[in-house]
Amino acid sequence: MRIGELSRRTGVSVPTIKYYVREGLLPAGRLSSPNQASYDETHERRLRLIRALLDIGGLSVAGIREVLAAIDDPGQSVHKVLGEAVHLLVPRYEADPDAAMIAARAKVAALIERRGWEMDAEDSQSEALAAALAALDRVGYGSYAEAVLDDYADAAEKAARADLAYVGRSVAREDMVESSVVGTVLGEAMLAALRRMAHVDASARTYETE
Amino acid sequence: MRIGELSRRTGVSVPTIKYYVREGLLPAGRLSSPNQASYDETHERRLRLIRALLDIGGLSVAGIREVLAAIDDPGQSVHKVLGEAVHLLVPRYEADPDAAMIAARAKVAALIERRGWEMDAEDSQSEALAAALAALDRVGYGSYAEAVLDDYADAAEKAARADLAYVGRSVAREDMVESSVVGTVLGEAMLAALRRMAHVDASARTYETE
Repeated sequence: MRIGELSRRTGVSVPTIKYYVREGLLPAGRLSSPNQASYDETHERRLRLIRALLDIGGLSVAGIREVLAAIDDPGQSVHKVLGEAVHLLVPRYEADPDAAMIAARAKVAALIERRGWEMDAEDSQSEALAAALAALDRVGYGSYAEAVLDDYADAAEKAARADLAYVGRSVAREDMVESSVVGTVLGEAMLAALRRMAHVDASARTYETE
Repeated sequence: MRIGELSRRTGVSVPTIKYYVREGLLPAGRLSSPNQASYDETHERRLRLIRALLDIGGLSVAGIREVLAAIDDPGQSVHKVLGEAVHLLVPRYEADPDAAMIAARAKVAALIERRGWEMDAEDSQSEALAAALAALDRVGYGSYAEAVLDDYADAAEKAARADLAYVGRSVAREDMVESSVVGTVLGEAMLAALRRMAHVDASARTYETE
């Protein structure tokens, strides 16, 4: 198809599609004449993925470029590529830890131990949790984090188990990295929205009759 | 305390603190002499909240200004102010729904009905869920969303129940809006990190022995 048709199908404007090609997010179309490029379903699919990561996942163009490179990188072990792809999705936190961050890291290490999770307390996901716990502590909500942490870990395990059950049943090996990125970013948006909805429900039940 | 001490305590630079005052995020200090302002613990606490919303929550300065205004707005019903404050945290999605968005809204309405949640299918949290489901559908992961949606709703309810149990027990009425914003934004970051950690654990168990 021509770029105009690709634009119509995906709702992404022609200049934006050209920008993604220039930025290396989207492969160039196949030249069918010196100034006419042709696009196919793989472009359409990739373009939808880019938009989802941008609009719902809130990733930057540079972040998406790295994630797509990991998706397209063949021949590594699944666990390793999954780890790398998802690692790239984690926001970076300052290197210089304060007291709140040091205490939070200890809480994360204790949690990993307590739950028997097979992972490194120094990996990027653990750091992201420590950063969230440290931020809660700094704004005076350390006791909240402490009170809910294990219930949250139960909830997270429930979601992760549902994901893995689906992946094991339905996802071909070669699609696994892409599906992991999609599941991480969009599944997170889905879970976040559901949690907020559950809050609205709980708040309505608790406070609306006041 | 002087601005230098406030900066030292929070790790936020003096020019940045001045920027937040100019942008209306942070109240100005009390003038103790014509060119000397004095800050107290309320400034320190507010500054930490601003940093948490920026760094962990990923909110914009404009978004934070709105959220803080809702926090500081007295005399509305708790449920209403909670709703407004949290509504402001939701990313805005395009007004012109495509087929995927229309189908997603129907799925959200069915979910609300199925779970007996007291809420509006048109509210902003429902729209955020519909946007995530539509994005999954557009990138070819509609069947994934369908497969995990109810497990995710269980997980979300578990987290929300833990939050409400804590809030009901520990939070004074006047702190409720702030704690709701903090809990929404930072609790979300905490849950997202935990889910990714649970994925790492599950992936290690499943694929590392290959």
